[in-house]
Amino acid sequence: MRRWNGWGDETFNLELPPQGQSFLAERVGASHALEDVSLESVCAKVPESRLPADDTVAKLIDTSPEARVRHARGQSLSDWLAMRSGEFGVFPDGVARPETSVDVQNLLHYAQARNIELIPYGGGTSVAGHINPLAGEKPVLTVDMCGMNRLIDLDRESQIATFGAGTPGPLVESQLRAHGYTLGHFPQSFELSTIGGWVASRSSGQQSLRYGRIEQLFAGGQIETLKGTLNLPTIPASSAGPDIREMILGSEGRIGLITEVKVRVTRLPEQESFHVVFFPDWDKARTACRKLVQNRTQLSMLRLSNAIETETQLALAGHPQLIGMLEKVLSLRGADEGKCMMTFGLTGSKHQCVSARQEAKRICSEYKGVYTGTRLGKKWAEKRFTMPYLREALWQMGYAVDTLETATDWDNVDTLLGLMENNLRNGLQDRDESKNERTHVFTHLSHFYGQGCSIYTTYVFRVADSYEETLARWKHLKNTTSELIVRNRGTISHQHGVGKDHAPFLPVEKGELGMLAIHSLCRTFDPEGILNPKTLLG
Amino acid sequence: MRRWNGWGDETFNLELPPQGQSFLAERVGASHALEDVSLESVCAKVPESRLPADDTVAKLIDTSPEARVRHARGQSLSDWLAMRSGEFGVFPDGVARPETSVDVQNLLHYAQARNIELIPYGGGTSVAGHINPLAGEKPVLTVDMCGMNRLIDLDRESQIATFGAGTPGPLVESQLRAHGYTLGHFPQSFELSTIGGWVASRSSGQQSLRYGRIEQLFAGGQIETLKGTLNLPTIPASSAGPDIREMILGSEGRIGLITEVKVRVTRLPEQESFHVVFFPDWDKARTACRKLVQNRTQLSMLRLSNAIETETQLALAGHPQLIGMLEKVLSLRGADEGKCMMTFGLTGSKHQCVSARQEAKRICSEYKGVYTGTRLGKKWAEKRFTMPYLREALWQMGYAVDTLETATDWDNVDTLLGLMENNLRNGLQDRDESKNERTHVFTHLSHFYGQGCSIYTTYVFRVADSYEETLARWKHLKNTTSELIVRNRGTISHQHGVGKDHAPFLPVEKGELGMLAIHSLCRTFDPEGILNPKTLLG
Repeated sequence: MRRWNGWGDETFNLELPPQGQSFLAERVGASHALEDVSLESVCAKVPESRLPADDTVAKLIDTSPEARVRHARGQSLSDWLAMRSGEFGVFPDGVARPETSVDVQNLLHYAQARNIELIPYGGGTSVAGHINPLAGEKPVLTVDMCGMNRLIDLDRESQIATFGAGTPGPLVESQLRAHGYTLGHFPQSFELSTIGGWVASRSSGQQSLRYGRIEQLFAGGQIETLKGTLNLPTIPASSAGPDIREMILGSEGRIGLITEVKVRVTRLPEQESFHVVFFPDWDKARTACRKLVQNRTQLSMLRLSNAIETETQLALAGHPQLIGMLEKVLSLRGADEGKCMMTFGLTGSKHQCVSARQEAKRICSEYKGVYTGTRLGKKWAEKRFTMPYLREALWQMGYAVDTLETATDWDNVDTLLGLMENNLRNGLQDRDESKNERTHVFTHLSHFYGQGCSIYTTYVFRVADSYEETLARWKHLKNTTSELIVRNRGTISHQHGVGKDHAPFLPVEKGELGMLAIHSLCRTFDPEGILNPKTLLG
Repeated sequence: MRRWNGWGDETFNLELPPQGQSFLAERVGASHALEDVSLESVCAKVPESRLPADDTVAKLIDTSPEARVRHARGQSLSDWLAMRSGEFGVFPDGVARPETSVDVQNLLHYAQARNIELIPYGGGTSVAGHINPLAGEKPVLTVDMCGMNRLIDLDRESQIATFGAGTPGPLVESQLRAHGYTLGHFPQSFELSTIGGWVASRSSGQQSLRYGRIEQLFAGGQIETLKGTLNLPTIPASSAGPDIREMILGSEGRIGLITEVKVRVTRLPEQESFHVVFFPDWDKARTACRKLVQNRTQLSMLRLSNAIETETQLALAGHPQLIGMLEKVLSLRGADEGKCMMTFGLTGSKHQCVSARQEAKRICSEYKGVYTGTRLGKKWAEKRFTMPYLREALWQMGYAVDTLETATDWDNVDTLLGLMENNLRNGLQDRDESKNERTHVFTHLSHFYGQGCSIYTTYVFRVADSYEETLARWKHLKNTTSELIVRNRGTISHQHGVGKDHAPFLPVEKGELGMLAIHSLCRTFDPEGILNPKTLLG
């Protein structure tokens, strides 16, 4: 069963190897865990539902305390702290589980007639507070789309698949695979997040270099709004005015509820492999990545860990003898202290993979990259969705872990990365209440464009003696770094969306008139502001 | 000097070879030209300007009759008929030529304060009535951006170039080429159209398969609106809410005047070549194209002429002996009557071009394609921007030529293409006033996507005895076919935009709520509707 207060399935646990434990203790100090509350104790706190009874939607709505607890929070660190401490503050008044577009229309009518706030809910994997209910006068109904999870149509000629919006990643891929197709959208949240959620939050997957972001995959579909049904026809490309698809992408539930998603799919590839190259230093490694993508080498995936992330990953990998041997070999070939690990993917026809591998290896070797083959790449592929489980293992040891991500142009990557890492590294030491407290910070670049790339920074710190102080530490790190990002040409999010947590930073990025455009769009479709209020626009 | 009543430079003339003339006479009958009026006679008709005097903008505005005539019409066939007959109906009251963003701001203030309509003007190459002034109470000021035509900045690391919005194609490429870069955006209007116009109308270039449409190239920039300056920051990709760039793309002057355009550029390629393959029939040829693009073969350009276009092109090419020899060889290899010509481009590193050529040839031969090398491809590349000049030659012979274009999903390409061609072929014969009048109709597919492609249909018909009747024939063909397109899953335009001519058909494509979104956006930025009224939204 799914964990009610953390990531993934209860039966799956990832253990940190002993070397990993000592590595962390050295970096940030030994720690001890805070006590978790039980699901029962939280359920006991859930107040009476304020939802007015209504026959048209009664059978769709679950007001049980457990359902309301399980839909109250996402996966941000502040959500974790709420779930572990039991201090939720607010619960939705009920959870609806529609199975058809008509069900969704009925829920919209109900919400409008009874002045209820609606929060669309996909996999509940938001790390930016998209699905958290807010305290207020109006009852809040969370609409869980999990009942709409089928492959509705597959047009093999046009390679368009139609899915119910609540279809989670594994069901998207398994239903397509049965016909020989793939969507190729693999965000780290893949196991739980849904296709409708990907659209609503403008998601990006690990192999976006081949398949594109969700913006490139989303071909059209159906959105139920308070003004009626918005149908987005599938057209390959058009110059007929502003693109309505692009207004729905990233709308985070403010315009309507996405019920059907049409996506551009691809035949399953003939070949796929992941390769690892080590570079002697960051400058060479980063330049090699830039050259690869600006050269349009046909890679399906590219990721570059900086020196600290490389060191951390090798330390947490276990198998110290094997890693030791690897490091000796790398050292002999010039990749010693300060080395950076690049992983690249090849996906496509056999011919394409052969050709791209040759070109990639040639460019990497120009920058002194040491090619190590596919062994470590295979490991990466096996573990690509398990990183969130590590959070549980670290939590049990008294460590909080979170990530911050952005994207910026190449000329600004090092500057912004440095600002982010420094602020996270020194953030707790600069703060009176947490002096001398260290943070372990490392970064990778994981989505590449001719113009720039994403920056994905992970930070680990010890939990404090109390939940309150742990939350305060997180807020300080998160908010000061977010401010730095938007003040220094970064987007507030490359792949996680805005939600409620990033909303205060959006106006710096979009500017006054950009915000005006988004505001006017949302107001047009939802004049009373009952759809996912405070999300996106704050 | 630029032709005042047609395409391109007066000194450049394209002649139709004698074989071409007899080919057309056979298809639609011999014809005779209508008489063109002189520039002087049109200038004499221009009424007094209604623009109120204002010191802040006086030096920017030209109210001379010739400037007003030269900015009154674009390049649609109805524009041509107006220019050739002298029946313009309406002229702008003046032409402003701003040189800075501040000039543009001053023009906006002037327009708002004095209740004047503004029409932004790039290269004047619209074929959909974007820049035509309408009769009405308010004075109309056309804002010609030609003074803002410089490369302002080039960031080599991020590969972002900043241009003044009025920079025409050749100046975009020559200024970049001096630094070793290219934008790679080559619409057929390239010689005259501007980078700001490409953004405003969501343009697509002949090599979009490599470089992307303008949506992929447009990284940000500056738009002057009635509410202030909208700055679009350059960010490689973002999940931070709806993308404001995508609201400006295709806004056709309704939101504001684009003054600065930042685009994603590329190093000049190591190699570029264009190759021609003939297929025995349409079905094999179309399928080969679909396979090439769905296989992600790294082509830079792909174009497929149907059998009639292939026949027409070979007939109009001149060199009947050479063509005869080619056709004999093709016939021996299975591409006889009904054969279809494909042109594909290879652009990139030497390694990429070699690899993609191998893959392309393999896929083509699976569908019985006869590869003929680069000789005809070179011809295509030399003549890629000269097609519009042919219109002049045909006009002098008494033939009117126009095109209709759309895009649709693969499963619908043949159906829609058939509907369009049949309607154009029979359109004049079905009509009482033009019975027995034939139309010569042919088509190519020119922009390819995994999901579908564009359909570009050309039709040639004889001018009638009068301009009025010629215009009526065109209107009948254009409007009935446009209606068919949007009623049958096609976009009203894949690459020419909406303008005033396509505006009546947009609501079918976008739907009521799609139109609501665009309306609300335009109203937010221009509540009085003084920016390019009736364009896009009708």
